[in-house]
Amino acid sequence: MLKTLQWTGDALRLVDQTRLPGEVVYVDITTPEAMHDAIRRLVVRGAPAIGIAAAFGVYLGVRNSSDRNKSFPADLEKVCKYLATSRPTAVNLFWAIERIRKIGSSPQRILQECMAMIDEDNAVCREIGEHGLKLLLSHCSADRTINLITHCNAGGLATAQFGTALAPMYVGHQRGVKFHVFADETRPLLQGARITAMELLANGIDCTLVCDNMAAAVFTNHKIDAVIVGTDRVAANGDVANKIGTHTLAIVARRFGVPFYVGCPTSTIDRTLANGSLIPIEQRSPEEITCGFGRRTAPEKVKCFNPAFDVTPAELVSAIITEKGILQAPYGPAIAGICP
Amino acid sequence: MLKTLQWTGDALRLVDQTRLPGEVVYVDITTPEAMHDAIRRLVVRGAPAIGIAAAFGVYLGVRNSSDRNKSFPADLEKVCKYLATSRPTAVNLFWAIERIRKIGSSPQRILQECMAMIDEDNAVCREIGEHGLKLLLSHCSADRTINLITHCNAGGLATAQFGTALAPMYVGHQRGVKFHVFADETRPLLQGARITAMELLANGIDCTLVCDNMAAAVFTNHKIDAVIVGTDRVAANGDVANKIGTHTLAIVARRFGVPFYVGCPTSTIDRTLANGSLIPIEQRSPEEITCGFGRRTAPEKVKCFNPAFDVTPAELVSAIITEKGILQAPYGPAIAGICP
Repeated sequence: MLKTLQWTGDALRLVDQTRLPGEVVYVDITTPEAMHDAIRRLVVRGAPAIGIAAAFGVYLGVRNSSDRNKSFPADLEKVCKYLATSRPTAVNLFWAIERIRKIGSSPQRILQECMAMIDEDNAVCREIGEHGLKLLLSHCSADRTINLITHCNAGGLATAQFGTALAPMYVGHQRGVKFHVFADETRPLLQGARITAMELLANGIDCTLVCDNMAAAVFTNHKIDAVIVGTDRVAANGDVANKIGTHTLAIVARRFGVPFYVGCPTSTIDRTLANGSLIPIEQRSPEEITCGFGRRTAPEKVKCFNPAFDVTPAELVSAIITEKGILQAPYGPAIAGICP
Repeated sequence: MLKTLQWTGDALRLVDQTRLPGEVVYVDITTPEAMHDAIRRLVVRGAPAIGIAAAFGVYLGVRNSSDRNKSFPADLEKVCKYLATSRPTAVNLFWAIERIRKIGSSPQRILQECMAMIDEDNAVCREIGEHGLKLLLSHCSADRTINLITHCNAGGLATAQFGTALAPMYVGHQRGVKFHVFADETRPLLQGARITAMELLANGIDCTLVCDNMAAAVFTNHKIDAVIVGTDRVAANGDVANKIGTHTLAIVARRFGVPFYVGCPTSTIDRTLANGSLIPIEQRSPEEITCGFGRRTAPEKVKCFNPAFDVTPAELVSAIITEKGILQAPYGPAIAGICP
């Protein structure tokens, strides 16, 4: 499998996800500026992965700050503030930067924390996989194929290695559980077509690619057991920000009576926001819609509305799968109980 | 404005809609084989337009059949059967071919009928525009902008000239009514981005392009007065086949309490089918999804599900706007009353 991110001893090596699946190109990031650009351009993407990438970005910005009392604290503040401007929605970015800022007593200590975050991410994703698999098996018998829909990519390439929404499939697949996954292509940047489909095929999981607008046709023509997606930020009341199109998919799932699950590390929960309307939603360039893939496919000068995320109200969420267990409605107390 | 189709005296001249908006190329169709290919490849598309195109295709196949008693009837049958295999879902294709077959006493008479179908289509679309505008104004005050969402293209380029779903906007715009239209890009072939956005801008109607999966975000962030789409076939009970994604959009509209309207010439109603589950749905090539934008955007060998249409249940349809008036539920009797 491709490596989302790896520390080389001198650089954070990222697989350039903007060039998948056609080309596998690794880029070595050695400065905070290059990391800011990599996050902004989605070279690295997925809430957990950009959290870790930003943490390494902070390290890259202070690794040569040797004067512990003078330049180091100011340099640390500066690089933390700077990297926090790379993308606005995924809370893991701010969570990771804050974590590094707080323990930032020396460059060595920061690098150690960054490395620990990778290991933690792997452990957290594996636990999400275990809990998620149990949840799926609780309403799908294990002797038949479990049919799922997923949107965007919340797999290994959205985390250090293992994924959130796709983790239950990877855990189950290793134990002989059969899955078939409809992967939404996920316009405008096609993370589902480019990344999820590739990742599932590489891991031997049966997969069918569909356009996002086919949700109702998929539910009409196929027995679907559940929808499972990742998230970029969950508010205190359980509202879920995730890749644009998730809310539409959740509405269609509800119409067809299919459960809608969210794989979510507790680091993605933001208890400081009472509800999803307070989550900042990144607006991206119209060119992502009008000239996405090598040629212009819309008239010049057409206006676009291009929010990168939407917010699915908690009411449409059947369960939030965290590393600490399954949360169910009412989400307010469930979240308060798990994130003290 | 571009001409969808025009008779040159020797050929049916089509604007090649696969090359819009980047290039405006007209192609002269002179044989049934070329017409079959043009319909199949979506050089001409939109249920009313392919009906007229197929009618001319029949004429092109028999125009040199001079022996009225011998070769002409057999040639007519043969070309009718052949053109009926070009696309399966839009009923106007079969309706138009059958109409020509029935009156087919001579090539001259057939050409006359084809020309009459263009005039009729213009009249029908104009009436749909009048009825649709009245419907929109009945719940939107005319002194403010009317905000709509449309999917795919049911405009001038889907008919001879005027459109079905877009006709109320064109009629209203001429009378000073202001519209703003969110145009779904309409994956996989982007008829919304390529054709509807171009058509609306060319006609001076304010338009914003969105990806199909943004429906819930559009309803959340903007006051939408109605969704209005075209259709390829309406069953006897009011179930509506239309471009893939329509059903998903109708479900989201219902969730947000927004009316969902269908512009529909009575020639698009198929009373022979009791309900929408009986409408044949065309499955198209996976490459439309995997290599849509000039380069491959999904892994080799990934499976795709690519239905060209879906069926929106009558229950989600707020009104069907025909040239004979507005139909409302229960659609069975309403349709029976209007299509004897």
